[in-house]
Order: sequence, then structure tokens, then C-alpha cells
Amino acid sequence: MSFEREEPNYYGAGPALLPTDVLQQAALDLINYQNLGLGVGEISHRSKQAVSIVDETKVNLTRLLAIPDTHEVFFMQGGGTSGFSSSAANLMAAYAKRTGKKGKAAYAVTGTWSKKAYEEALRLGFEAEAVVDVKKQNGKFGDIPPTSEWKPVNSDYAYLYYCDNETVNGIEFQQVPEAYAAGVEIVADMSSNFLSRKIDVSQYGLILAGAQKNVGLAGLSIYIIKKNLLEQAGDEELKQLGVPLSPIAFHYPTVVQNNSAYNTIPIFTLHIINLVLKKLLAQGGLAVQEATNGRKAAALYSVLDSYPQLFKLPVATGVRSKMNIVFTIEGEGNEDEFLKLSGARGLTGLKGHRSVGGMRASLYNAVTEKSVQSLVDFTKEFAESRK
Amino acid sequence: MSFEREEPNYYGAGPALLPTDVLQQAALDLINYQNLGLGVGEISHRSKQAVSIVDETKVNLTRLLAIPDTHEVFFMQGGGTSGFSSSAANLMAAYAKRTGKKGKAAYAVTGTWSKKAYEEALRLGFEAEAVVDVKKQNGKFGDIPPTSEWKPVNSDYAYLYYCDNETVNGIEFQQVPEAYAAGVEIVADMSSNFLSRKIDVSQYGLILAGAQKNVGLAGLSIYIIKKNLLEQAGDEELKQLGVPLSPIAFHYPTVVQNNSAYNTIPIFTLHIINLVLKKLLAQGGLAVQEATNGRKAAALYSVLDSYPQLFKLPVATGVRSKMNIVFTIEGEGNEDEFLKLSGARGLTGLKGHRSVGGMRASLYNAVTEKSVQSLVDFTKEFAESRK
Repeated sequence: MSFEREEPNYYGAGPALLPTDVLQQAALDLINYQNLGLGVGEISHRSKQAVSIVDETKVNLTRLLAIPDTHEVFFMQGGGTSGFSSSAANLMAAYAKRTGKKGKAAYAVTGTWSKKAYEEALRLGFEAEAVVDVKKQNGKFGDIPPTSEWKPVNSDYAYLYYCDNETVNGIEFQQVPEAYAAGVEIVADMSSNFLSRKIDVSQYGLILAGAQKNVGLAGLSIYIIKKNLLEQAGDEELKQLGVPLSPIAFHYPTVVQNNSAYNTIPIFTLHIINLVLKKLLAQGGLAVQEATNGRKAAALYSVLDSYPQLFKLPVATGVRSKMNIVFTIEGEGNEDEFLKLSGARGLTGLKGHRSVGGMRASLYNAVTEKSVQSLVDFTKEFAESRK
Repeated sequence: MSFEREEPNYYGAGPALLPTDVLQQAALDLINYQNLGLGVGEISHRSKQAVSIVDETKVNLTRLLAIPDTHEVFFMQGGGTSGFSSSAANLMAAYAKRTGKKGKAAYAVTGTWSKKAYEEALRLGFEAEAVVDVKKQNGKFGDIPPTSEWKPVNSDYAYLYYCDNETVNGIEFQQVPEAYAAGVEIVADMSSNFLSRKIDVSQYGLILAGAQKNVGLAGLSIYIIKKNLLEQAGDEELKQLGVPLSPIAFHYPTVVQNNSAYNTIPIFTLHIINLVLKKLLAQGGLAVQEATNGRKAAALYSVLDSYPQLFKLPVATGVRSKMNIVFTIEGEGNEDEFLKLSGARGLTGLKGHRSVGGMRASLYNAVTEKSVQSLVDFTKEFAESRK
């Protein structure tokens, strides 16, 4: 039995790589946590050890992101899909409390995930509008039009929802649409670029992030919410207004009142998140991580851009994702060959999402610069061999 | 760094003990699964390794429970709370498909968890009725009146919901209320006694079970559903009938169509479940486990019953749980003393649920007969010392 492994060169989109030392610590703690004689997944979610994992994780996240007092952190089971479903019900309930009215929701549809979120809001019976729908306009996802071209929003809108980084399509917002959404709460899905760079939390009504890219295993999501959005209309009032309710496990005020343990929190999964946060803090925080991620993405984009006949990048330069680098390869059989040769060199997880094809290299926090350099070297060699 | 631990004597109610060898295997697989060079929590949920964990787990569960072809197994994130919320929406949608009508739901309220499920159905806007409410009738939970005393159900009811084992209260159904519910689908929450004994799956419309007691870590639940209940009315029809919809991540037909990976399935957590199932099969299956659990519970109840002046059992003899043994101790300070002395001997997790007080010994599958014997011995000594 061995705890060791070679450092993987893995670029999967999620579930994704985690730091080896975090996994090693987690493996030990799975069997015997803090010398309790019990694993961290076996202790009661109300034990002092479990509560302290919840509290510590909140503190570490608050430090990393400089979360202001106006905002609250909580955790819930599920991933992005539960996240966007629940955000609709909860933000609408907060709007009903503030205004006594049923609100509308605005969705910026810039990729696969924001499209799903928009469709779910409609499906659940919320009044939702796509203030921009890039695929409808351009025939494909690949750019983010300036907000001056989006349908304007006003105080009838409970929130503006957007996906900060579209994992499938490799599109990342370069700035928060704050001026556009003046007076409207901003909800951002940061599942695939959370903690990849510094952000100004005060700009957001709600940030939601599935753990399984930059911060942990699948199964748990992180929420950062403006505290006043926890003031929600009561169930009966919502029913009268025709606003659908959130299941109780996803009712944010209930979750917050119970310190994220209304539902039994998957404490092993949260423990891993906490270990990742501690590592990020020890490495100098998000400024350092942001610089590293910038260099990683620049290195790979640079080699791809150097061979424009061979590599095609479907995403407009200004909105390229630093996390998910999407490209196709010209020439019959070249994509298969790229996957085969890179795989033979131990570079894996490069196949694009089944809905869009091509290649996708996900350079999340746990992917080291060294690993990116291996990919860059390979990509260059591959391109040279195709000349 | 060490993988070893002494066998814990832990009787917590959940999250609960898991077999040490399962945790040891899982710890290795967390770092490097099947020599992939990647941990099982890092691989894509669409990789062949992940799909094969899903498929194997289904096969092993089908073997263990002899699940007939009429039923389908699937997994979803969340625990009991997501389970009961989602069962209401899905069973009502199936009823609407069958009848074109909005149905009613019947709840047998026999303890804390069935009460929560009933309240959630009402809260979400379903028409729900408590066909029996033991606390309302008797002033406390502690018995299950015969079904002849329950309010009768008929074909207007979409389903009868009951909680097969009430974890907080230590009350377990000894038989399925099948005759009572003739013509009505039976939904059973088996979160805390799942796989503790043989059951006849064909009797149920839906079985739901959070993993965190007998089968795994918190964060994942197992569902076994009658296939025809996956035929549901469409969203628009449900809206017209006034039947609230389930969030898409908890829409059973969608989950089943996607082989439990519509939402990214927490594959590490599922892997642990599969390891537990394999172990149960290797040990001879549920007949063996049922016999073992019977002996364990009998041993502890027997010593408690031997000192009726000291130990009080709030649950009627006929409905005592084999999983969660609840008792109080007479005499000023005796409960604190019991906890203190047992703790000093390494017997832990015995404190009762904060809502009911007293003691609770949870004797789930992973609690060995040897460990139960240690508890029995201690309990006897304690009682003798109080004579």
C-alpha cells in the first residue's frame, strides 16, 4: 500500500486534479482524524470537530477572498445544477420580500451553463428573460457582446445571472457587468474559475461555485451571499404571488441559520476544501495564484496562436478563458493523433466536451506550471511535426 | 503516516462508522485509482472508470436486494431531506401522468423524520395528509398504531410515505403497510436501516436511503423506484394542474436517463458505497447481516430490559428499532456518568439526539458483534454499580 504517486499531467475539466499533498492528508484523515480513532467522514456533523471544519473553512475563504461583513458564506450539497436552480427560487423570494412583488430574472446566455440555468428558471415557472443569447445572435457561443448591446434591465428584475467562466465553451468574463446591472443583484456562477484570481465580492449579490474544479471533490458547492438577500418573503406570501418555492434543503436562510448543517454536510468533502484553502493561503493567496494562472494560460495560448493554420480557437481573443482552453485541430485525423500522442506521453484529459468536440485543456489551480510546460512542449512538437 | 487504526467502538447515529478495510481501500484509491495515476475523485464522471463504478454499484445492489426487473436503481446528491422533498414532486408527477389529476399524499407520521417529510410536502404546496400522527395522538413518538386505526387511503392518493426506521426516536416498522395501502404507491425512507435486513423490493413504489448510515459517507442517496413511476406528466401539464415541479437535478426521469450522471455524481462517495456492497456480498449477503444485526440488538435490549428501574425504554416493545436503540437512565447525574465512564473506555457516540435527550446506541452494519459486546458488558457493569 502506498500513498505516493507521480505528479499527474492531467487537464480534465472536472472533476479535476487536486494537489497530491492535499489528497494524501485527506486519505489519512479518512481513516483517523486528529487521533480520534475515527475518520473525518464518520464523525457526527454536530461534533465539535465537524463544526470546527465548517467554521475554519469559512474563515479561510473569508481571508482568501477578503469577503466583507456584508456577505455570508455557506455550503450546500450538489453542484452547479442545484446551484442555479436554487438561486432562482431564493433570489426571487428575497425580491418578493423587498418589493412585495413577483420579480423577473435576467440571464446572460453566453455558453452551455448559463443556457442551462436560464432554461431551468423558465422550466420551474419563474419569469426569466435572456438579455443576451449569443448562440441565437451569432449561431454559436464564442464571444460576449458588450453590455451596451444587451437588453436593458431595471428594478423589475430580481437579479442578473451570468456564468463567469463557461467550462464547456472556454469563455470567461473579463469584468463584472456591474454598471449594466446597476440596482439589480448580480448572481455569478463561478464553478470553474472560483479562486483562480482575485475578485471583489462586494459587487455580487450571490456567488455560487461547485467545488469540483479548483477546490475539491464533486458533491459540495460554496455560496457567498449578500446578507440582506437572506431576508425572504414567507412561504405563504410566495405562494400567493405565484413564486415557486425552493426545497427546504436549498432554502438559503434555513441553511445559514443551521451553519450549513441543516442537511448533513458531507464533512469529508468539506475537509478537502479546507485543506485546499489552507494551501492557497500558505502559497501567498489569490494574487499569487492569479499570476501563476495568467502565465499558464498565456503559455498555452501563445503556442496555439503560433500555428494558426493548424490550431483554431473558436473563442474571441478578448473573452478567452484562463481555465478552459478550447481549440480544434485542422487536418484529417490530427485530433485523434494529438490525443494519442499526448496520451502516450502521459498528458491526459484533453478531449473536448462531447457537445462541442475538439480539444480542451483545463488549467485549474492544481495544474502546475511545470505540467503546463509539458503540454506546451508537446503541442509545439506536434505542430512542428505537422508542418 | 499510517493507514492503521484500532477498531473503533463507535455508536454514532450518522454520519456513522464504516468498515476500516473499506476506508483503507478508499484512501488508496483517493490518491491513485486502478493505477491511472489519478485519484478516483479526480476522474471525469463520464470516464469509463467512473461509469463502471456506477454500473457495478447498481449490479451489486441489485444482487444484494434481489431487485426485480420492474425496478430501477439510481443515485442522487443529498441525503434524507433532499430525498423526501424530491419524492413528493416526482410521485405527484407520476400520478398526474396516470390519472390526469393532481393527487393527494398520505404520510404516516411516526417520528421526527416522517414529520419533517410531511411538513415539507405541505410547505411545497402539495396536498398532503397525516393518516396517522402518533405524537398528536399520544403526546409523544414511541409506538406505531395498527394500520386499522389510520385514516384510510384510496385511489385519490398518489402515494403513502413512511419512514421505515426513525433514527431519532428509535422506532422501526416491523412490516410494510402493504394491505393498508392497496392500490397506493408506497414510498419508504430507509436511510437508517437500508441493507440492515432483507426486504421485498416489489412491495415499494420508491425506496430512498441516504448513504451515511449503513453504506457510505454523507452526500449521496440511493433510490430504488418502480419503473412505471418514471413516466411523469410534462412540466406544462403539471403547471396547469398546480403541481409544483422538482428542480432538474432531482427530476428522477432525467437522472435515470443520464445513468445518475446528469449532475456530476460524487464518484468517490459512490465508490465507497460500492466497496461496502462488495463486502456485504462477500460476507454472505443480507440474510447474514440481518441475523447479525438481530443478535446485536437483542443483546443490548436484553441488558437494558434486565434493569427496568435504571433504564427506561421509551419505545413500545413491538416497534423497537434494531438500528437505533434509545433509552434514558434514571437517577440524578446517571446519564452524564454513563457517558463519562463509557467514553473513558473508548465507547463513544452514545449521546441521544438533542431533540429527545437520553442515550442512543446506533448499531449499524459496520458496528461489529464484538463492539456491541463491549457496550453490553459496560452497560451491565454500570447497572450493577448503581444497584
